[in-house]
Amino acid sequence: MLGAKIVEVGEGTCVVEVPFADGITQQESYFHGAVTGAIADTAGGYAAMTLAPLDREVLTVEYKVNFLAPARGEKLVARGEVVTAGRRLFVCRDEVFAVEGRDERVCAATLQTVSLAPARATDRKPGA
Amino acid sequence: MLGAKIVEVGEGTCVVEVPFADGITQQESYFHGAVTGAIADTAGGYAAMTLAPLDREVLTVEYKVNFLAPARGEKLVARGEVVTAGRRLFVCRDEVFAVEGRDERVCAATLQTVSLAPARATDRKPGA
Amino acid sequence: MLGAKIVEVGEGTCVVEVPFADGITQQESYFHGAVTGAIADTAGGYAAMTLAPLDREVLTVEYKVNFLAPARGEKLVARGEVVTAGRRLFVCRDEVFAVEGRDERVCAATLQTVSLAPARATDRKPGA
Amino acid sequence: MLGAKIVEVGEGTCVVEVPFADGITQQESYFHGAVTGAIADTAGGYAAMTLAPLDREVLTVEYKVNFLAPARGEKLVARGEVVTAGRRLFVCRDEVFAVEGRDERVCAATLQTVSLAPARATDRKPGA
Repeated sequence: MLGAKIVEVGEGTCVVEVPFADGITQQESYFHGAVTGAIADTAGGYAAMTLAPLDREVLTVEYKVNFLAPARGEKLVARGEVVTAGRRLFVCRDEVFAVEGRDERVCAATLQTVSLAPARATDRKPGA
Repeated sequence: MLGAKIVEVGEGTCVVEVPFADGITQQESYFHGAVTGAIADTAGGYAAMTLAPLDREVLTVEYKVNFLAPARGEKLVARGEVVTAGRRLFVCRDEVFAVEGRDERVCAATLQTVSLAPARATDRKPGA
Repeated sequence: MLGAKIVEVGEGTCVVEVPFADGITQQESYFHGAVTGAIADTAGGYAAMTLAPLDREVLTVEYKVNFLAPARGEKLVARGEVVTAGRRLFVCRDEVFAVEGRDERVCAATLQTVSLAPARATDRKPGA
Repeated sequence: MLGAKIVEVGEGTCVVEVPFADGITQQESYFHGAVTGAIADTAGGYAAMTLAPLDREVLTVEYKVNFLAPARGEKLVARGEVVTAGRRLFVCRDEVFAVEGRDERVCAATLQTVSLAPARATDRKPGA
């Protein structure tokens, strides 16, 4: 939907990028707030997945997002990391950066709770 | 972007709808979590606007969203309401319902802080 | 610790009160922000307990609290209610009111996630 | 109220400690959840104060706290840091650690919004 792609995955971490594109932005190259929240959510979900057993699916229970600066630039980059990994619940912390050339500026911070549930036939992806 | 439209506005309240559409949904008529958060944010922002002085613009400072049930159905309806209206900050509470025929089921709840800033030439809209 | 007491319990709801007392207040009869958050958390936890199976304990996973007005008065009253009750997670919405004579004024709103875990020998109480 | 003391202050950072004490703990040396939230809030508030103009007071608008592990030990240590400092709003990120001898373990994470308001005669302190 957003043209988001995973650009880096570590143990308990994930980096997701969304390039600027018409439709998901506003006038003047601003990214829509929904996009900012969505890629943070996605980055955290995939970060959680790297630590979850294979037979589990990762679902976002809730998140809180603070919008810190206008999300303006040629792409948005979200870095998600797992803070604590419990048996059933993970807590992740995510940051979103607006990138314009060499300039990178934090534009959102989130704190997110995800749950691990037994995977079902219909495979849901983080951030979806 | 989302095909969202305002269907009702009151004093400190606003109802926003997003019809099911390919692109913003997943397989099986699920709405994307980002859409759920976005229309809640939008409903709260417009609810705040109904109580804000005309020369102010409404910006979302932060929100927290709890996903309560799968956002599945033919449309999503978000109801936003202002809980308290301060001089510079408003707090809004929003609920999102998934509607399928006559069936309506709450699928997300948010608590949201918006700020009132002097309006600039470039007019930003709530939820954007 | 806070002198909080449950004054009303319903199906999925709970009302908790904390009287003004030195120690938990500040100068000028203000309640400490920690008290405001704590009784909201407690009210929501007990509200969840009314819907939880007996062999489960209720633990707060997280909450978000918005401080809406100074918590000033002779007592604080928190009303917690369960928004959705899942198999493992409940979401509660709580409001705290500052009461001075007949005057009651909302001073905080929270959105809270609690989990149901198998009860252990050491019985933890909501808000603790 | 809690016996909290500031043990370190930097530019945009603050560390607060609360020793174990009867009254603020539960059975078995657990700290009360309200204490955990309160010292995180306090640490963030003082971190913000280090960057705020002298004629401003710092008030917590809202925070979200995730409880990550039981707050058990001889003391709690909260580390607050300012993520972004705006003209009127600061966003802080705080972590609380339970310390037992040399063992230190994260037990809570928060994301917090504080506002800067013109200071009044009655001086309110962060976390209060």
